[in-house]
Order: sequence, then structure tokens, then C-alpha cells
Amino acid sequence: MQTYVEIFSQGEEILTGQVVDTNAAWLSQKLVAMGFVVKRHSSVGDNLADLKSLLSEIAQRADCCICTGGLGPTVDDLTALAVSEAFDLPLELDPIALEQIQAHYQRRQRVMAGTNRKQALFPQGAERIDNEWGTAPGFALQYQRCWFIFVPGVPAEMKPMFNEKIAQNLAQQFQLQASRLITLRSVGIGESDLQAKLNNIQIPETVQLSFRAADGEVQTKLLFPATSDPQAIRVLVNLVHKTIGDFVFSVDNLDGQQGDLIERVDHLMQQAKLTLALQETVSQGLIAAKCIAKPWLVSSVFSRILIEDEDYLKAAENHALKLQQQAKTDLVLVQLYQGNFEQKTQNIKVYTLLLGLKGMRSSQTTLAGHAKRKQSQAATLGLDLLRRYLQGIPAG
Amino acid sequence: MQTYVEIFSQGEEILTGQVVDTNAAWLSQKLVAMGFVVKRHSSVGDNLADLKSLLSEIAQRADCCICTGGLGPTVDDLTALAVSEAFDLPLELDPIALEQIQAHYQRRQRVMAGTNRKQALFPQGAERIDNEWGTAPGFALQYQRCWFIFVPGVPAEMKPMFNEKIAQNLAQQFQLQASRLITLRSVGIGESDLQAKLNNIQIPETVQLSFRAADGEVQTKLLFPATSDPQAIRVLVNLVHKTIGDFVFSVDNLDGQQGDLIERVDHLMQQAKLTLALQETVSQGLIAAKCIAKPWLVSSVFSRILIEDEDYLKAAENHALKLQQQAKTDLVLVQLYQGNFEQKTQNIKVYTLLLGLKGMRSSQTTLAGHAKRKQSQAATLGLDLLRRYLQGIPAG
Repeated sequence: MQTYVEIFSQGEEILTGQVVDTNAAWLSQKLVAMGFVVKRHSSVGDNLADLKSLLSEIAQRADCCICTGGLGPTVDDLTALAVSEAFDLPLELDPIALEQIQAHYQRRQRVMAGTNRKQALFPQGAERIDNEWGTAPGFALQYQRCWFIFVPGVPAEMKPMFNEKIAQNLAQQFQLQASRLITLRSVGIGESDLQAKLNNIQIPETVQLSFRAADGEVQTKLLFPATSDPQAIRVLVNLVHKTIGDFVFSVDNLDGQQGDLIERVDHLMQQAKLTLALQETVSQGLIAAKCIAKPWLVSSVFSRILIEDEDYLKAAENHALKLQQQAKTDLVLVQLYQGNFEQKTQNIKVYTLLLGLKGMRSSQTTLAGHAKRKQSQAATLGLDLLRRYLQGIPAG
Repeated sequence: MQTYVEIFSQGEEILTGQVVDTNAAWLSQKLVAMGFVVKRHSSVGDNLADLKSLLSEIAQRADCCICTGGLGPTVDDLTALAVSEAFDLPLELDPIALEQIQAHYQRRQRVMAGTNRKQALFPQGAERIDNEWGTAPGFALQYQRCWFIFVPGVPAEMKPMFNEKIAQNLAQQFQLQASRLITLRSVGIGESDLQAKLNNIQIPETVQLSFRAADGEVQTKLLFPATSDPQAIRVLVNLVHKTIGDFVFSVDNLDGQQGDLIERVDHLMQQAKLTLALQETVSQGLIAAKCIAKPWLVSSVFSRILIEDEDYLKAAENHALKLQQQAKTDLVLVQLYQGNFEQKTQNIKVYTLLLGLKGMRSSQTTLAGHAKRKQSQAATLGLDLLRRYLQGIPAG
């Protein structure tokens, strides 16, 4: 039996295109992986009549609906009111929710505005969903066919609420047969090269293969049907991993190392008990910024280094030796570049050099595009060289 | 009279979250600027029954609908068939469309696959929309209340088709009056406090007021109807600006300074021809990273500073004086903090100090939440103190 879920994203800023609705895609991926069939995405704005009619439609059509947005304190946040009117359930004050909202303000040493009281009003019979990541609690209720879940639209609140307060309950409530999505995450290889490599191996027709490029990494996704044999999954994933090679830094949802490149580097640095100092140029603080709350990062300096030397790698080595003496860390990472990185039409050559107890390793890469893109790619290059050093594999 | 438009994005990859639907936001911005009222966004997958029922709903609800996707050559591209069945219009071959598709392949010296013939089949009575940017032509037709426009989902085809083949016709076909959105962008004040301040002034019922919090700033949005007098707009926006006060750093779409906090600071720094050096702690490189490609940022150092002193502001001042001597910039910005910023449950106190030719100014703020949130807020605090200094207004 298929369980139908819909995503309902509320907000004038989505409807008018001020904001791209990334929540719907994020939630859909999660729900598909759990075994739901996603039937529809809908968005309406901050208009009571539109909200009510969409809620009533979904109540008859779906088994479950995740609604994001419209839980804020201001007059244009209408979700609770719309639910109350559409389903004829009076709004009631949830004293625990009110306490939580007040505590949120007290922690920040601010006084709660009167308008925030509204965020503790839920339709009669609704279950509160605690929000430890922001002000507005969510709520859930059954109406007609559909189990509705209402959460804030701010991704930094919605995502942890879904992961920690909602997903497990949904899995218990609905009899789902989850397909299994395994994601191989790589850096330094593009989508079409990945595809070409994988053309050489046989992937069963029941396994869905797809690729996704995002935030400096490329993901190879394998979606296995619920009935797949775990051993067969492992054999195929290992074959795909071996075929792609050292570009893979994580395999999510198998049992080895997972997470993004920072999480991977963090794990390796903690395991090796090493410290790091950075000299940033193109990345301009971005490597340090990404390493937030990682105690092994001791210092980072960004400055506009002028290279008089023709030999950039030699210059990087001299900088690294100097930085090693100053910072007294186990590892130092230095990045220099040649060219004008602020011009979108000009390519630059980036020299990344890592100096540590196991010696030195370096990479040279050409980067193109606008300044922000070069900055982001330079940061990824630095982190990936560090990852490769820590794993004892050659530079990419 | 309001003209209602809906956006219908078709595709399994959108529904399952493999692709974020950026088309809907792009089209909405265009349509709002033209004077349409966007009423709803919807997505369904490659399922004939779902497509048909959504088409029938929209036909009764909207004056116009832009549908993207489902025009490809493969079996899962069902749009024309769904329209044909839902509206009872037999599919007919458009010989000009077929010629165009064949020519597309000839230009690329490739042979047209038999499946591509399908892309020249349109429901009876439809108007063809030529596609010079890809294979599949679009089409348009009236059914019940709604003028439906069908275009490919590939953004590189959809966008030029909309701009060059569709927008002008729509403007002629519908009597549209473009409304005007003005956005006041602020830092240092929350949504509910903004609302409370603005409760004291009279905003006409025809002007739509809304708030949005994103990326460290809060936006106050005023949507004026097309018929508004420009002078009346200016008077009201100035009153709102004055009521919110110095928290406002930009007003988009009026005529003064606009853009995000970085753009605002960039403009002020370039105007004043000043240079800056940074000492970052909590922000850990993030201020520098945000200033990518801004030539006035000379250097940034992140390090784990241990304060022995009890007086953090005094310590910040000492650091600033030292940094000023080393970096030889016109301005130096130093940020220190008290507390454990890596612990989500612990608050920290952040001391930001700016030293320049016009003297020194500083701010003290308590930050809460997880490390990334504190980092991001600390970066905003630093940039906003700089903005205030450059504008000659007191610290917030």
C-alpha cells in the first residue's frame, strides 16, 4: 500500500519568488527515503481564504502533509488561524509553548513582545512539536484523511525539528517500506566524468542511479528498493566506490565514514590528534569560517600576498616553513594564486601546499568563474588536500 | 481588477526533491513585476491522473497558468497527453513544429529519433510557441477561465522563451497594473520589535505590510498598488524608515542606497576611500570571507585569543592599537568574546571595537544558539558597527 504525502509551503515570499522553496525538495528527499510517495507540492501566500481552501483539499487527498511557514509572530503569519477556521477547531493557548517562547527570550536577555503570545495558540486537539532551534513551536493534528504537521519555514529550525522530533514518529505511525538511498560524496571530479566511469559497470535495473552537484561536491546516488539484500547493496556500493576512486570522501547511509567534507576532515583530525594553521588568499577566510567550532584549527591569516618569485610552489613552501615556526602547529596549509581572481573572465592558477610531520604535499589547479565561485572552490581544494594527507592518499 | 496566475511545475525529479524548483521563483518574480497576482505554485510528478486533475482545478481557478516541464521526447513526458485528455482536445501534428525539431537535429548533424515526433503533437486549437533554444516547442491554449502556457522545464530554454516569446503577449492580453514593492532592510532588531514600532503609525489598507528574516537581516516590505502616487509612496516609506531608525541599512527600490549589508558597507568604504584590517574570533574568518573581492579589506587574522584581563573592552582596545600599528590600515576592527561559544546552551558576550580616524566606537551584545549561529551573528555585528561608523551614527 502506498502512503501519500504532500508538501505545503506557505509564504508570500515564496509565492512572489523572493525566496526559492528549498524546503520542499529537502523534505521530499527525506520522505521518499522513508518510503512515502510524494504526491504534490503546493504554495500559497499569506491569504486566509487561499490557505483554508488548500488545507481542505489536502485533508481529502493525502495521508500526511508537511506544512512549512506561517508560524511567526506577525499579522501575516496565518497558519494556526487558517487551520482553526478550515477545520472548525478553536484556537487554545498552550501554556507549555508559551513558557518555551518566554524562555527563548530570557536566554537572549530580551523581553518577549506581546505579539509572540500568538505563537502559543494552537487549534484544539493539536499536539505541540517542540522547537529548540527557534521561537515558534510546531504542531500536528489529524483532519479527515490527513495527518498534518506544521513547522516553521526557516530551514535552520525546520530541518532539525524534522530530523529529531518528527521523522521517527512518522515512521512508527505509517507502515512504510523504505527504499535505501546510498550517497557517495566526491570532490575533484565532475558529473559527466563520473557518469563515464560508471558506464563500465553493470547496475541492476531496479537500482536508480542519479547524480547531483552541490556546494563544491558531486554526489552519486544509488536508490535501492526496500526488498534489496543488504549484502548485494554492499557489494554494488563497494564496486561503485572503487570505480570512482579516491575522489570519494564519504559514503552516506552504508556504515563507514559519512558527512560532508568538513565533517570528514574533522573526524580525521580528531583521530590523528593534530593541530592546523592556515594561510589563506583566494579563500579569504572561508576555510577558517567553515571550520567553526573545530578545536584543531589554531589560527588563520588572510592577506594580500605579493609573489615576486616566479616559482609559486617554492614561494608557498617558504610561507609554510615560516608559518610553521610562528604558529607551532602540527600542520600548516598555505594557498597562493597566480592571476586576477576578481575578474569573472580570467582564470587563476591556485597552488595549495600542506606541510606536516609526514612531509609535504601540494596541488595545482586552474579555477574559473566569478570571485565567489573561485573562493569557494579554493576552500574546497584546501580541505580536500588536507583530507587526502590525513588518509595517506596522493593529491588529486 | 486582479489577474490571477498560477505556476505549475511538472516533474518527478522536482516531486522527489532531486531538483529544487527554481523556475517557479524566477517566473513569479517576472509575473509580479508585470502586475499579475501569483495565487499558487503546484508540482505533481509524471503521473497522468495527477496531471489531469491539477489541470482541471487550475482551469477553474486562475486567469493564466504557466506550466513548465513534461514536453520532452520520452514516455514519462506526459504534458500534451494530459492536456488532451483533461480538456478533451485530440492531439494533432503541427507540421511547422515537426520541421523545427528536425532542423534542430540537422544543425547538430544528428538524426532525429522517432520519439521526437511526439514533441510536435499539440492539443487541437493550441498556439505553438517557438523554441529557438532547444528541441521542444511550447504551446498555449484557453480552457474555461484560464489561458494555459506550456514551456519546457530546462531553465536555459524556459527563460528566453518567456522573455522573448511570451511576456509581451501576456502584457497585451491582460490589463495589468504593476504594483511596487519597497523593502527596508535592517540589522539589530527583530521582527516582533519592528511590528511593535510600526503599530504606532498608520499604514493605508491598500498597502500590504510584511516582514521577512533571512541571512542576519530583517526585511520590512511595503507593497503599494499600481495606482499609488509616487510622492505618497515616498512620504510613507520615509515615515516607516524614521520609525524603525538607524537599524535600517538599505531601502530597495526607492532611489537611495540599496543592497545587502556587504554591498552597503562596500559602497561606504569605497566612497570614503578607506582600508580595513580585521581581528576575528567568534566570526572565525567569516567577515573576511563575506568581503570577497572587496579591495579595501587588507588583512584578517583569526586566532584563539586568551584574555587575562577582566576588562574585555580595554583588551579589545589594546588589540586594536597593536593591529593598527602592524597593518597600517585606516580602520581596524577587533572582536573578542567572553564565554564558551561552541556550546549551544551557553550564551557568550561579544565585544566589537572599531578604531579609525574619527575615533573609536564599540558595541557589546549577548549571542545565543549553536556555534554557527553565533559565528554568523558576530560577523553581522562587526559589519554593522563598520556601517554605523561610516555613516556617522552611534553603535546600535
